[in-house]
Amino acid sequence: MDRHDIALIGFGGVNRAFAQIVHDRGERLADELGFALRIVAITDLRLGSVMQSDGIDLAAVFAMQADDTFAGWRGGAAVPQNDYVIRHTTADIVVEATFTNPLDGEPGISHVRTALESGKSVVTTNKGPVALASGELNRIAATHGVFFAYEGSVMSGTPVLRFAAETLKGLRVTEVQGILNGTSNYVLGRMENGLSLDAAVAEAQQLGYAEADPTADIGGSDVQLKVVILANEILGADITPADVTCEGIVGVTPEDIARAAAEGARWKLIGSARRDETGAVVASVRPVALAATHPLAGVSGATNAVSFDTDLLGTVTVSGPGAGRVETAYALLSDIIAIDAAQHAPIEVGS
Amino acid sequence: MDRHDIALIGFGGVNRAFAQIVHDRGERLADELGFALRIVAITDLRLGSVMQSDGIDLAAVFAMQADDTFAGWRGGAAVPQNDYVIRHTTADIVVEATFTNPLDGEPGISHVRTALESGKSVVTTNKGPVALASGELNRIAATHGVFFAYEGSVMSGTPVLRFAAETLKGLRVTEVQGILNGTSNYVLGRMENGLSLDAAVAEAQQLGYAEADPTADIGGSDVQLKVVILANEILGADITPADVTCEGIVGVTPEDIARAAAEGARWKLIGSARRDETGAVVASVRPVALAATHPLAGVSGATNAVSFDTDLLGTVTVSGPGAGRVETAYALLSDIIAIDAAQHAPIEVGS
Repeated sequence: MDRHDIALIGFGGVNRAFAQIVHDRGERLADELGFALRIVAITDLRLGSVMQSDGIDLAAVFAMQADDTFAGWRGGAAVPQNDYVIRHTTADIVVEATFTNPLDGEPGISHVRTALESGKSVVTTNKGPVALASGELNRIAATHGVFFAYEGSVMSGTPVLRFAAETLKGLRVTEVQGILNGTSNYVLGRMENGLSLDAAVAEAQQLGYAEADPTADIGGSDVQLKVVILANEILGADITPADVTCEGIVGVTPEDIARAAAEGARWKLIGSARRDETGAVVASVRPVALAATHPLAGVSGATNAVSFDTDLLGTVTVSGPGAGRVETAYALLSDIIAIDAAQHAPIEVGS
Repeated sequence: MDRHDIALIGFGGVNRAFAQIVHDRGERLADELGFALRIVAITDLRLGSVMQSDGIDLAAVFAMQADDTFAGWRGGAAVPQNDYVIRHTTADIVVEATFTNPLDGEPGISHVRTALESGKSVVTTNKGPVALASGELNRIAATHGVFFAYEGSVMSGTPVLRFAAETLKGLRVTEVQGILNGTSNYVLGRMENGLSLDAAVAEAQQLGYAEADPTADIGGSDVQLKVVILANEILGADITPADVTCEGIVGVTPEDIARAAAEGARWKLIGSARRDETGAVVASVRPVALAATHPLAGVSGATNAVSFDTDLLGTVTVSGPGAGRVETAYALLSDIIAIDAAQHAPIEVGS
């Protein structure tokens, strides 16, 4: 049976959930997918690094205690050695899931570049490297005959890039618009129930939706990066975050919410990109009061959704979770499945 | 360049819209898809039949007047000759779009069977043949090394079978539930605005959503066939319409609607299929009062939607048009695109 050997760069919640899927379901997935998965390298800021070309004992990894590191393990070290591992791992696919700065995309971009240049395919859910450098990274991948896939960079495991690429073939997509930040959507929903912005944010933090610093969520910069990805991948644009006008939900008042509700409308933080009459791409993030009949108006709680306006089919919408460790880990699995399929057939992946 | 030669069986609204797409966009699509489309046969109850292996002049077809037939055309006749055309056409793909009886699936089933047995792939949006005979017809297709594809049999051009097959790989789908009849959904929405069932149905008829005889729409039998297709395709079941308990919206009263609205809930006609604890498939069509946070509660007007409950990703939902000539014609195009891809790679289509 075919097999993919995997290196995990970063071992936070998402890669840990991915390893758990491989551990718990690897055999069933192999039966179903026609290939096995084996983890041959792990690096982590806290745990250090380990490379074992015959496969790492995941049960032993999950059993590690708070202060344990990979020091003393065969092929192990107390420090992460990300660059060394990416270059020298026997893995054919590198999973990049480090904490990456969304402003400069590092260290994610460097990790992805190094992996691709050393002939390994890369999957990631890090939006920074995709939003800021997908053009360069895809060219490097093509040059080296490997693949770069990043379905999870927009809505975690909910298919959006692959939805467009695989199920909307032959259509011309004229506009994409989405609810792409679960925290903002949750907060706006709670404001409809009468909470203040601050109280709703505090509640979202208690529930684990919002970060300790919710600026990127409610200020719109998280959505801004996702709009760049959607515009570049789905509309064939070549834009950067600076090309996306950005306004978060901090200016939405209880009065705005009440006025909309009286008309049956709902405020949503909408990220959108469309081609205008000249063919130029216009992209923005801003709060919009949507009529109840709008396909995104009914998207509740922390759910995310993207609507595609098309020439022959009108508007189609996909919705689902936009976050969550297991849900995001599934995005990694879905990318690996796509890479395996692409290696067996002369078709493109991830675009 | 590769080319697919197409025979159109039936020339009502959907196949006419498909021919229009080929006529208007064939060159652009060929650039994009890597294959050309050519119509080489048309049969129609009213127009008769024509076979021209070098391609039919579609502009001449569109210019035909009310009483014109294909009599006198090269390869033409005043009568449809469906069976003869299906057997003898030079087409490699037959598009089946006749008026087919949903109770016995005829003449669609016979048309599909004949085409597959004569070594031609078939695409259809006729739900009867798919719901009643997909097992047999898929076996015949496999035996003859051709393809049978029917994305449009559930939600016209909105991807649902291909959504599951292409974008949910590696997931276990435990339940599918959908809003699968635009007329019923429109009627329930208008009842929320205070109309009676009869008044809302009359309005739906005026708008062209509902048939002159709306029994299949509001009685649930249209959804029943679609549930059979979803259960068999997505849950791997082998059920028939008799296995799907069926209750339409005729029993939903204004009082039911008002009571639900007071609780923030909305009545929807839900077709669903799930595997129970024993692994058996339980399938039904029935009106359900959905909480406002349910992913199908916000699906408005004549829009259709299907939610998939999965093991790793939770619930994902796709929504879009469930009818319309152009939208349904796109389903045919999407099936042809999938067949072309399948012919270039050893992967399955339509399942």
